[in-house]
Amino acid sequence: MDFSTLDWNVDEHGILTLTLSRPHQLNAFSVTMAAELEQAFRRVRTADDVRAVVVTGAGKAFCAGMDLSAEGNVFGLDETAAPTADDLRDHLTEPPFQDGVRDTGGKVALAIHACDKPVIAAINGAAVGIGATMTLAMDIRMASARARIGFVFGKLGIVPEAASSFFLPRIVGLSKALELVYAADILTAQESLDAGLVRSIHEPDELLPAAHALALSFVRERSPAAIAMARRLLFAGAGSAHPLDAHRRDSLAMWHASIGDGKEGVAAFLEKRAPVFTRTVHDVPDLG
Amino acid sequence: MDFSTLDWNVDEHGILTLTLSRPHQLNAFSVTMAAELEQAFRRVRTADDVRAVVVTGAGKAFCAGMDLSAEGNVFGLDETAAPTADDLRDHLTEPPFQDGVRDTGGKVALAIHACDKPVIAAINGAAVGIGATMTLAMDIRMASARARIGFVFGKLGIVPEAASSFFLPRIVGLSKALELVYAADILTAQESLDAGLVRSIHEPDELLPAAHALALSFVRERSPAAIAMARRLLFAGAGSAHPLDAHRRDSLAMWHASIGDGKEGVAAFLEKRAPVFTRTVHDVPDLG
Amino acid sequence: MDFSTLDWNVDEHGILTLTLSRPHQLNAFSVTMAAELEQAFRRVRTADDVRAVVVTGAGKAFCAGMDLSAEGNVFGLDETAAPTADDLRDHLTEPPFQDGVRDTGGKVALAIHACDKPVIAAINGAAVGIGATMTLAMDIRMASARARIGFVFGKLGIVPEAASSFFLPRIVGLSKALELVYAADILTAQESLDAGLVRSIHEPDELLPAAHALALSFVRERSPAAIAMARRLLFAGAGSAHPLDAHRRDSLAMWHASIGDGKEGVAAFLEKRAPVFTRTVHDVPDLG
Repeated sequence: MDFSTLDWNVDEHGILTLTLSRPHQLNAFSVTMAAELEQAFRRVRTADDVRAVVVTGAGKAFCAGMDLSAEGNVFGLDETAAPTADDLRDHLTEPPFQDGVRDTGGKVALAIHACDKPVIAAINGAAVGIGATMTLAMDIRMASARARIGFVFGKLGIVPEAASSFFLPRIVGLSKALELVYAADILTAQESLDAGLVRSIHEPDELLPAAHALALSFVRERSPAAIAMARRLLFAGAGSAHPLDAHRRDSLAMWHASIGDGKEGVAAFLEKRAPVFTRTVHDVPDLG
Repeated sequence: MDFSTLDWNVDEHGILTLTLSRPHQLNAFSVTMAAELEQAFRRVRTADDVRAVVVTGAGKAFCAGMDLSAEGNVFGLDETAAPTADDLRDHLTEPPFQDGVRDTGGKVALAIHACDKPVIAAINGAAVGIGATMTLAMDIRMASARARIGFVFGKLGIVPEAASSFFLPRIVGLSKALELVYAADILTAQESLDAGLVRSIHEPDELLPAAHALALSFVRERSPAAIAMARRLLFAGAGSAHPLDAHRRDSLAMWHASIGDGKEGVAAFLEKRAPVFTRTVHDVPDLG
Repeated sequence: MDFSTLDWNVDEHGILTLTLSRPHQLNAFSVTMAAELEQAFRRVRTADDVRAVVVTGAGKAFCAGMDLSAEGNVFGLDETAAPTADDLRDHLTEPPFQDGVRDTGGKVALAIHACDKPVIAAINGAAVGIGATMTLAMDIRMASARARIGFVFGKLGIVPEAASSFFLPRIVGLSKALELVYAADILTAQESLDAGLVRSIHEPDELLPAAHALALSFVRERSPAAIAMARRLLFAGAGSAHPLDAHRRDSLAMWHASIGDGKEGVAAFLEKRAPVFTRTVHDVPDLG
C-alpha cells in the first residue's frame, strides 16, 4: 500500500499493523490522513490477506487530534453550504454534502465500522480529539501506561464527532459518556481503564506485542466469514429496537454458516482435528 | 407438565424450577429440547401458579451446547431454502422459514423474552454455545463457582445466535461483547463476574437456594400485572430510540396500574398493611 | 422565579441550584411540583444566565416520592380515559391525554431531557419512587453518604415511570436495571455506587460544593451552543440504530460549530488565549 500518512504492514498471520505516521506532527489528523484512513479500511474489507487490524501511532503519540495548522478552514467544511437536518437525511452521500458538510472523522469511523475484520486500537500515547473518537469505532482499545485520552472538543467550541455519539454510550454507559464529553479532560491510562474506555494497560514496549497476540487469538483457526457475520450481528444488535430484529439477522447468518464453514467446523470438532475454513467476507450475504 | 428433556417443578411460592434434564448428554440442546423450552416458556406466560422462573441444569453441566451427535444437519436448517434479508424481514413466521431457516435458539430466546415473569439462570456448570446464549435472554444470571461460560461459536465456524446480539451488548457493553465473541474462550465463574456476565458467584450447593431466594424477593407481595408491565417496559426501553417512546408506554402502564393494583398498593401502604393484589398478566394491555 | 415547591437560585457562574422544597413533606412530588419542575426546565432551556443545573432537596430528603396524601386519585390520572397503545402513539399531546393519561413524572423527565444544559442530581437524602426516577433523566448523579435510592414501585403495585425505562438500562445495563426494579429495595449510597447509579459519594456537607464544582468545570470557558449540541448528540446517539444516524447529526453539528464558536475556539487555542464564545442554545439548529 502506498500511503503518505500511514504505514501498512501485514504479518505472516494476517495481522495488519496500521500506523498513523506523521510523527513530527504527533500524527495529527489531516485531510490527507482522513482520506487515506477511509481508503485503508475499505481495502481491509476486501484484502483476503488481512484477518485483523491493529491501529497504533508512530513515535510518542497515537494521534494528537485534528491538524490545526492547516491553512483555511481546518474542519474541511464548506461554509456556504448551510445544510439542514432534512438535507442530511435525504442526500447524505450526494454532492455537495460528500465533502463540504460530512464530518471527515465520521467517514473514517463508518469505514472502520464496515471493514468486517476485528480492529484493535493500540493507544501508545496521546489520543486527543479525533485521535480519541476514531478509536471508539474500533472494536477494542488497549493502552500503553503512557496513553492519554481526551475528548477535548468542548474546549474548542466544537462537538465530539466521528459517529462517537453512537459508540461512546454503548462502551462506557450514558452518564459516563456525558461526563467525559462535558469535562473535556485528558485522562491517564488508569483513568481510561476506570472509565471503561480501554480494556487493559500495558508497559509501553509490551503494548504492540499484546495487541498482536490478542488479534491473533481472534483469527487463528477461525472462519473469516463467521467473524465478519458475528461482528455485523453485534454492532447491529447493539442498535436494534427488539430481539426479533436480532433473530432475523441471526437466522440468516446461521443458515449461511450451516451450509458453509459451520459444516466443516462441526466435522473438525467431532473428528478432533483443526478445522480448515474456506469462506471469506466475500461470501457473507446482506444480513439486513 | 410432561417434557422429555425438561423437569418442571413449581414450589408453594410460585417459583418454577425449570431443569434442563439430559444429564448423560450434559444437557446438550437438541431439537426436542428447543421445542420443549419454547413450549415451556409460553406456558410460563399463561400459568397463573408460576410467578418467576429459575432455570438450571441436571447433574454437573448447565447446558453443553448444541447436540452435535444428532444425525444429518445438526443445526436443524433446510439447506435448500436460500433465504435473503428481505425474506426474513417480510415472512419471518411463514413457511418455509418457520422451521427451515429460523434459528432454533432464537425461538427459545423470544419465548423467554415474552414470558412476562422474571427469569433467573442458575448456571450450575458448563454453559457453552447455546447453553451460554440462552441465558442472555434471561433477566439475571447467577453462577456456581464451578460454572464455565463460553461463546465458542467462532471455533466451529458459526456465529452467536439466540438473539444474543440484542442482549449481550446491553449486558456487558459493546466492546466486551465483541471480545467475548471473538475470543470464543470458556470463562471461569470469576471471569464471568468480572466481565459483567453474571450477577454473583455461589458455592455449588448454595446456588439454587440463592436463586430461589432472589426470585421469591421479586414476587412476594407483588402484583403479577405490575411485574409483567415493568419487565416489558425495561426491555422495550432498552431498545427505544427516544425517551418519548418510553413515556408513551409508561403512561399506558401507569394508567392501567392506577385503575388496578396501584389503587390497592397505595391503600395498603397508607393503612400500613400488606397489599392484596389481584391483577395478573392476563390483565396487561398491549403497551405498544 | 416564583415557584411554591421549588427554590431557583442562579450563582455568578450561571450554575442554577434548583431545590425541591417541601421539606415538611420530605419534598414529596405533588401535582404542583410536577407542573413547576416541567416549567422550570423549560425556563432553563431559554434562560441565557443559566449554564448548568444542580438539583437537590431541602432538608433531610431529596424527594420521598409521589405525595400519597393527595386526595382522590394520587396518580393524577383520569380513570374514565381507557387509552390504548394506538391512542398514545397518535395523540400523545392532544386532549384528553395531555393531563388525564400522560404520566406526570414523564412530562418532567422529557423537560429535563430537552433543557440543553448539563443537569447534575445532588442526592442529599432519600430519593424514592419518582424521587429516584426523575434523577435518571438527569445527566449525572452524585450522592451524599446519607443518600438512599429506591425504585420501590413494585411494592405499590405500579411500575417505574418518568421515561426511566429508556434511561436506566443505558446507565446501569439491562440486567442490573431489571434487578433494581424487581427487588424494589432502597439502596444505600455505597450500593448505589456499586450498581453504577451514582458517580461518586460525598460527605453530606461536601455534596453541594462538589456538585457545583463539577458543574462549573463543565461550563467555564465553554460554548453554550457546543454543550447543547454535544448533549443532544449523545442522548440521540444512545438511541440510534446505526452509526450513520450519528454521522448525520454529527456532521450538521460540526458544520454549525465550524462557522460559529469553533472558529473562535481554534483561533484562541492557536493564539494561546482563553476563547470568547458567543453562541447560545438559541443558535443551535434542529439536528434531526
